[in-house]
Amino acid sequence: MRIDLNCDMGESFGVYTLGYDEAAMPHVTSINVACGFHASDPLNMINTIKLAKKYNLAIGAHPAFPDLVGFGRRVMAASKEEIFADVVYQIGALAGVCQSQGLKLQHVKVHGAMYNMAEKDIAVGTVIAEAIKSVDPNLYMVCSCASPMVKAAQNVGVNYVEEAFADRAYTKEGTLVPRSQPGAVIHDVKEVAERVLGLVKTGKVRAIDGTEIALKADTICVHGDTPGAVEMIKGIRVMLDQEGVTLKAFGEK
Amino acid sequence: MRIDLNCDMGESFGVYTLGYDEAAMPHVTSINVACGFHASDPLNMINTIKLAKKYNLAIGAHPAFPDLVGFGRRVMAASKEEIFADVVYQIGALAGVCQSQGLKLQHVKVHGAMYNMAEKDIAVGTVIAEAIKSVDPNLYMVCSCASPMVKAAQNVGVNYVEEAFADRAYTKEGTLVPRSQPGAVIHDVKEVAERVLGLVKTGKVRAIDGTEIALKADTICVHGDTPGAVEMIKGIRVMLDQEGVTLKAFGEK
Amino acid sequence: MRIDLNCDMGESFGVYTLGYDEAAMPHVTSINVACGFHASDPLNMINTIKLAKKYNLAIGAHPAFPDLVGFGRRVMAASKEEIFADVVYQIGALAGVCQSQGLKLQHVKVHGAMYNMAEKDIAVGTVIAEAIKSVDPNLYMVCSCASPMVKAAQNVGVNYVEEAFADRAYTKEGTLVPRSQPGAVIHDVKEVAERVLGLVKTGKVRAIDGTEIALKADTICVHGDTPGAVEMIKGIRVMLDQEGVTLKAFGEK
Amino acid sequence: MRIDLNCDMGESFGVYTLGYDEAAMPHVTSINVACGFHASDPLNMINTIKLAKKYNLAIGAHPAFPDLVGFGRRVMAASKEEIFADVVYQIGALAGVCQSQGLKLQHVKVHGAMYNMAEKDIAVGTVIAEAIKSVDPNLYMVCSCASPMVKAAQNVGVNYVEEAFADRAYTKEGTLVPRSQPGAVIHDVKEVAERVLGLVKTGKVRAIDGTEIALKADTICVHGDTPGAVEMIKGIRVMLDQEGVTLKAFGEK
Repeated sequence: MRIDLNCDMGESFGVYTLGYDEAAMPHVTSINVACGFHASDPLNMINTIKLAKKYNLAIGAHPAFPDLVGFGRRVMAASKEEIFADVVYQIGALAGVCQSQGLKLQHVKVHGAMYNMAEKDIAVGTVIAEAIKSVDPNLYMVCSCASPMVKAAQNVGVNYVEEAFADRAYTKEGTLVPRSQPGAVIHDVKEVAERVLGLVKTGKVRAIDGTEIALKADTICVHGDTPGAVEMIKGIRVMLDQEGVTLKAFGEK
Repeated sequence: MRIDLNCDMGESFGVYTLGYDEAAMPHVTSINVACGFHASDPLNMINTIKLAKKYNLAIGAHPAFPDLVGFGRRVMAASKEEIFADVVYQIGALAGVCQSQGLKLQHVKVHGAMYNMAEKDIAVGTVIAEAIKSVDPNLYMVCSCASPMVKAAQNVGVNYVEEAFADRAYTKEGTLVPRSQPGAVIHDVKEVAERVLGLVKTGKVRAIDGTEIALKADTICVHGDTPGAVEMIKGIRVMLDQEGVTLKAFGEK
Repeated sequence: MRIDLNCDMGESFGVYTLGYDEAAMPHVTSINVACGFHASDPLNMINTIKLAKKYNLAIGAHPAFPDLVGFGRRVMAASKEEIFADVVYQIGALAGVCQSQGLKLQHVKVHGAMYNMAEKDIAVGTVIAEAIKSVDPNLYMVCSCASPMVKAAQNVGVNYVEEAFADRAYTKEGTLVPRSQPGAVIHDVKEVAERVLGLVKTGKVRAIDGTEIALKADTICVHGDTPGAVEMIKGIRVMLDQEGVTLKAFGEK
Repeated sequence: MRIDLNCDMGESFGVYTLGYDEAAMPHVTSINVACGFHASDPLNMINTIKLAKKYNLAIGAHPAFPDLVGFGRRVMAASKEEIFADVVYQIGALAGVCQSQGLKLQHVKVHGAMYNMAEKDIAVGTVIAEAIKSVDPNLYMVCSCASPMVKAAQNVGVNYVEEAFADRAYTKEGTLVPRSQPGAVIHDVKEVAERVLGLVKTGKVRAIDGTEIALKADTICVHGDTPGAVEMIKGIRVMLDQEGVTLKAFGEK
């Protein structure tokens, strides 16, 4: 049994600090690094990759819409050509930063509104998959479990992995309960850790209505941008270690 | 006898068009492509690289300070770490775009104020050279002939070429006559073409005071952003062809 | 009989030039000036206002979503609070520029995707109307004829005018025929001028299906960003002059 | 005896938080509010002005170079026309935001690198003074004590006040000791409070070499962007209150 824990990182910008990157890094295996469109800047990207090197983490690009003030969370009516180009540009930029530190990219996971759009709209997922494959066919696309993103990745023929969210409730159809609904986010460390363990061991998790659903995840998304989140990650990690689950980046043999 | 003609390209942005890219492309051998900091955007970069592919041109990144409104022409007191990071980021971004079209980069030539600073300050040239080499040791750095940029490239051990400017007057010390001085820019097509031919054949050019100076150039910079400039490029090209000079990108064997 | 002709202006940016501002200015009465979010920059705004002063034009702010690369044409899922703030900020910025040249604002007309959203969604129109009124209760809001924008302006109690589009076809319901449909844009100068004249004299225009519809317009929107557009404006202007229609900014007594 | 305490505020941006605005506000009398070029965004500006209203503070614009990633701290070779336009635009934008909340501006204090340039170069100070006066002749320009900024303000005929820095050491010539030198910043709350009290009561302060120098200050600049800074402001405030100094915005009668 093995699993990967992925976490967004490098979302500071200029003088502004966001997230607990160095506190969270020792406990995860893959990171999604902001590329300057929703957060970060070139110097912060270099510093993030230096930290990733120190903690021996697998690195992914985390491309977003060009919306710094909105942190990439606002849906934008960008054309397919624009999304393709934005994704290619950001992968390249982070790949260059990695190369400057002797490293290379493992994966790409799009951010925020772009992720939400791709989760629902296979056309958006397809253009993202094409962008990733066009830059480097060895890259993995991180897709939301059992979503149209997976289908898009398969159609395009790009490497992909499926991710589940550690602290989010699922509907019985296997989609995320929207954050606006009660119970959408699970805050109890023990409960979250147990859900993650269940996902890894059985490929199943209890949906918000109590039914058990199948959820095949190659990687579990955890959050590092609140102090409590770091405790959450540690809690998950400890339980996985105790139960003999190997933590390893999904791209590693 | 062979020479390379390099030209800035891809400086449009969003709905804004700048330059006569497609008119100039058939007549040059290497292009310096804007990377989104002083001009261009991801989609425009893709379209520029598609054109470069059509005309079989060697491609270089053209990184600049993050100053879109000032077109990268304003000196900024950026730190060495910031310049390093900005250059790495922009090379990576364009390299990604090239990869998406099945191409790769030949060189890097920094733009505007960053070029002017590197021409005079070896510390700036050094950090640029280090940035280029760190991303890809096969890349060439385009340096102003006989300037501290050359020394910086040599110290760092990055591949480099020296460039002369087709339509610019030189002092007897071999530096560019500042644009603010009369005679700094030469507008006569025939005169410019003859100067270029002289540079290629003899490695010499007449300085503004009439003395002949040595100027070893691997590539000649021409401009493509005015209609007259395209005629100028054609004029240079025709004369070089007539005199049996081979036009070839400097990175080609 | 009097009418106002309004035209977008000041959409250049940095080194980039867009539109035929000075060619079009003598022929219109009100201008909508870009405020730096979809186009323009502070220096270009000052230069635009200096030109407006020379031609004695009434000035309006032309706020947009913060999307320079997309020219404010991409719908963005901005919150009401963000739209309110973006509109207030841009009105203020242009008002400051006007004051620096001894002028003041007449109106506000939102741009691009923000206009399109307000045309359909009264909630968006309402927040725009509130933003305008909060900055200066003397300002006029330019609304698309008979659209929910008008209702929003009325509800909020902001001054407003209704505009029709000179070169656009209307449905029999009085809405614009989408640009994607054939016949949506009318290119014949004489036909456009006659439609404008009809609007002014009779308050009626022929819809795309041939039926005559009522369209009460206080101002007619013309375009200044193609060479042909300037001829179009002149053609409209000449016919209105011949028929004794007074051209005057709507805010003038 | 009366004095004003001024403090930079509103320097958060998008999802990023900076400074302890609400903790510091009750203890100062004037605030310098970021205008979106080095920090802040329209919505954050509105929220900052709402807070300023709650605490009944006098409001100033805090314009800067367009350098969000560098927080306006990097010297830029902007032209006089560009500086004029950037200052006018930012004053207008914040004035619009104030108007939307029923308030108006008291003053303008330029930020970071622009302030440093104006402190040394009367030509820069002059263009800033002209920009301020052109937008609204009632505005005050905040100038560094006895610097060329003061001379510039006098030449232009703009209202101005002179400011001293609470926690900074001065040379015997009355200029700030550069931050790079030891002793440049004073960290002891009591010492700082006593210096401020001395400035207010005697118009004198001890320079770094021990000599007593004259320093006529209308306002004292304090900092609000570290937790310790808030304690510092409170310490100053308490001592001034105890000694019967009236705290009042400089623009108040």
